[in-house]
This record gives sequence, structure tokens and C-alpha cells, in this order.
Amino acid sequence: MNPPKKKPPGSSGDGVPKAVINRLSLYLRELQRLVRSGKDTTNSRELGSLLGFTDAQVRKDLAYFGQFGYPGIGYRCNELVDAIRGILGTDQVWSVVMVGVGNLGRALLGYQGFVEQGFRIVAAFDTDRAKVGSTIEGIPVYHLDDLGDIAEREAIRLGMIAVPSRAAQSVADNLVAAGIEGIVNFAPVTINLPEHVSRVGVDLAIELEQLSFSVVKNTDSS
Amino acid sequence: MNPPKKKPPGSSGDGVPKAVINRLSLYLRELQRLVRSGKDTTNSRELGSLLGFTDAQVRKDLAYFGQFGYPGIGYRCNELVDAIRGILGTDQVWSVVMVGVGNLGRALLGYQGFVEQGFRIVAAFDTDRAKVGSTIEGIPVYHLDDLGDIAEREAIRLGMIAVPSRAAQSVADNLVAAGIEGIVNFAPVTINLPEHVSRVGVDLAIELEQLSFSVVKNTDSS
Repeated sequence: MNPPKKKPPGSSGDGVPKAVINRLSLYLRELQRLVRSGKDTTNSRELGSLLGFTDAQVRKDLAYFGQFGYPGIGYRCNELVDAIRGILGTDQVWSVVMVGVGNLGRALLGYQGFVEQGFRIVAAFDTDRAKVGSTIEGIPVYHLDDLGDIAEREAIRLGMIAVPSRAAQSVADNLVAAGIEGIVNFAPVTINLPEHVSRVGVDLAIELEQLSFSVVKNTDSS
Repeated sequence: MNPPKKKPPGSSGDGVPKAVINRLSLYLRELQRLVRSGKDTTNSRELGSLLGFTDAQVRKDLAYFGQFGYPGIGYRCNELVDAIRGILGTDQVWSVVMVGVGNLGRALLGYQGFVEQGFRIVAAFDTDRAKVGSTIEGIPVYHLDDLGDIAEREAIRLGMIAVPSRAAQSVADNLVAAGIEGIVNFAPVTINLPEHVSRVGVDLAIELEQLSFSVVKNTDSS
């Protein structure tokens, strides 16, 4: 096995900017909605306008990965859904572990959106003996000490951290030791990981800041 | 009062792309970390490399809002923190209401990151009589019927929705009727709002998709 390639800053590998990968998720969600509402085809203008992007942006983003449109037709929604899932790697079901079953962890265990997009939480972990052995939203809760065994048995590659900030780094170290390759960290703190482990941090306050900006701007222009 | 200006697609007003506003939040978070770690100054290269952006990207983004650097010094961290908070509108404390105190709502009521960034949840609402009248994380839970009165009394402008998908639109309508100007929707469903109300949707599965992409890419390049 070769050492992992060093990625250029702002890139997610293969020279594709991270922002493009993020927009792929947004395109996917709109396409899934179009499919549910019975639409067979769409185009870059419609898809862009649903999300507030230009049609050129949509075409440029998709062009990183191939040619998806048909002349005179546009995109076939189902086909583009499948293609984007293939690019994102969600054309398979991922088994995921959750560490921390406080309020946030419990909420995430019951979050419908994960299952819909192909992520199945198969096991949860905590250090609280009162929680260990219980089942939440159908998901068994194990002691953190059992993480390595269960991750190996279930061939788990992704983990989510929903513990208090002070415990986040030590949990991250546990996940790395258990062979987890990607971590979503919901604790509002930065964690250090070896380079071969991918990470996404979730800062829920960012949404409120974006909203604050919009509301202030609306007020200014009234 | 003039009618609100129609915003161009992909823009957040004043011709600033939404993606730039989103990156402002990321710059703010890194600057706050630098301040906490005792750093007085930074520059576009350092700030960019902490986030995986080029230095040119950082300079271009900030240039939308003015001139913040000093020749031979770079950015003064504290000063740039204050400037970005001013731009985002978080140089004031916002009072926020939360609708829905199931697992996700409870988790959000206890989320430290909101308070740290200037968002104070002052009231929560639910329709479950067993929850109404209780206090969660120090925040009183009222019946949804009282939303209008309390929003007016406390001059609330922002609201968060953490109810099941099927109830999200009707709760959004309640928030609009109560005069709320901006809504963060955590329910995994799209809500319709009048044009004068700002919205941010939170799709927690997007983080897992981004992670899936990174892990698959790392595997391919190994």
C-alpha cells in the first residue's frame, strides 16, 4: 500500500474543490425531491435556480465527473441521482457507529435523514453503565471498551462523535485505534486525527450565523 | 417601508455570494481559536491553510467587505473577529425560540456552541402537554399556542424548528405569523416561507456524504 497522497489545500482529492463535493450533496437532494414529485428530467437552469446557483455553476460542477446531460432533454433525474451517489460513494449502504448517547446522540440515532441517504447506524457506544446494554431507536448501546471488537466484526468504516467537548479527542483516538477511516464530529471542538482518517466537523451555530446575516441584510434593505 | 429587494440567485444581498458568507463563519471560528491560543496576528496564508483554502481565496472573500490587513503585519485577530461578527450581525446577542423539544430539540437547547456565538435560546415550544410548563437546560417550555405572545414580548426575530417532518410546515407557518424573520429548519423536509422570511435548512446527512466521498477517495488512491 502506498502512503496516502497529500491533498492540495481546498481540494478533496483528484483536484476537485471541497465546495463542489458539498454542492453535489445539494444537487442530489433536489434531484431526489424532483423524482419524488414525479419529474423525469430537469436541466442546469432549473436545478440551479432551485438552489440559488447559476446554470453555469451546475454544469461546471458536474463536468468534473463526466458528461451527464442529453441534448434537447437535459438531465434524466434518476440517472443523475445514481451518478451522484456513485461519486459520493453512497451507492452502497455504509455502516456507522455513534459514540455518545446523550441528547444529541439520541437525536442523531433517530434521525431519518441518515437512513434515507444510505447510512445505517449499527451500534452506539457510551461509558455510562446506565445506558450500556440498552437499545435506543432499535440500536444497541455498548460500552466504549467494546468499540474495537464490534467495529472489526461489523467492518465499520465511519463513526460519529456526539460526546461533550472535553471527551471528544479521546473518543476520536479510540475510533482511530478501532480502524475507523472517517469521523463526523458534532462536539463543538477541533479534534486532531492522523492524515489517513477523514473528518467532517459540524458547527451547528454556523446555520444561525448565516441566518443572522440574511435577516440583518433584509432589514437594511427595507 | 419598501418591499424587500429581490436577491439574485446564489447571492445573499449586496452581490455577495452565499458561499462567501458561509466561509466568513469558518474564518471567524478559526480566528476565535487563534485568539484563544494567544495569537495576536495572522495572515491570509495561515488562515487559508488552516481551512484548506488558498490565500487568494481568503483575501478575495474579505475584500467584499473592506480592507482588513496591515502591510507587514497581516490581520489583527481580535479586530478581524469583531469585523466579521459585525458583518454577520452577531456583534449583538440574538434571542431565539426553539419549536419542538424531542431528542433533537433538547440536544439543541443544551448546545454550547450557540451561546458562544451570540445566540440565546429564550423560550421553547411544544404541543405535548407533558412537556409544556417544564424547564429544559434552564429554558422554559411553552405551548405552541403562546408563540405569538411570547415572540412579541421578547422581540424574537429568529426561530429553530426541531419537530417531525410532518409538522414542520405548520410550525413554520406559526413562526411566520408570530413575526419571526429567520428560521433554521432541522426537520429533513423543505418548508415554504414567504419571501421576506430568511431560511436555512440543515441536512445532517450531508456531513456523512462528504465523509463517504473522502473515505472512498482515500481508498482509491491507496
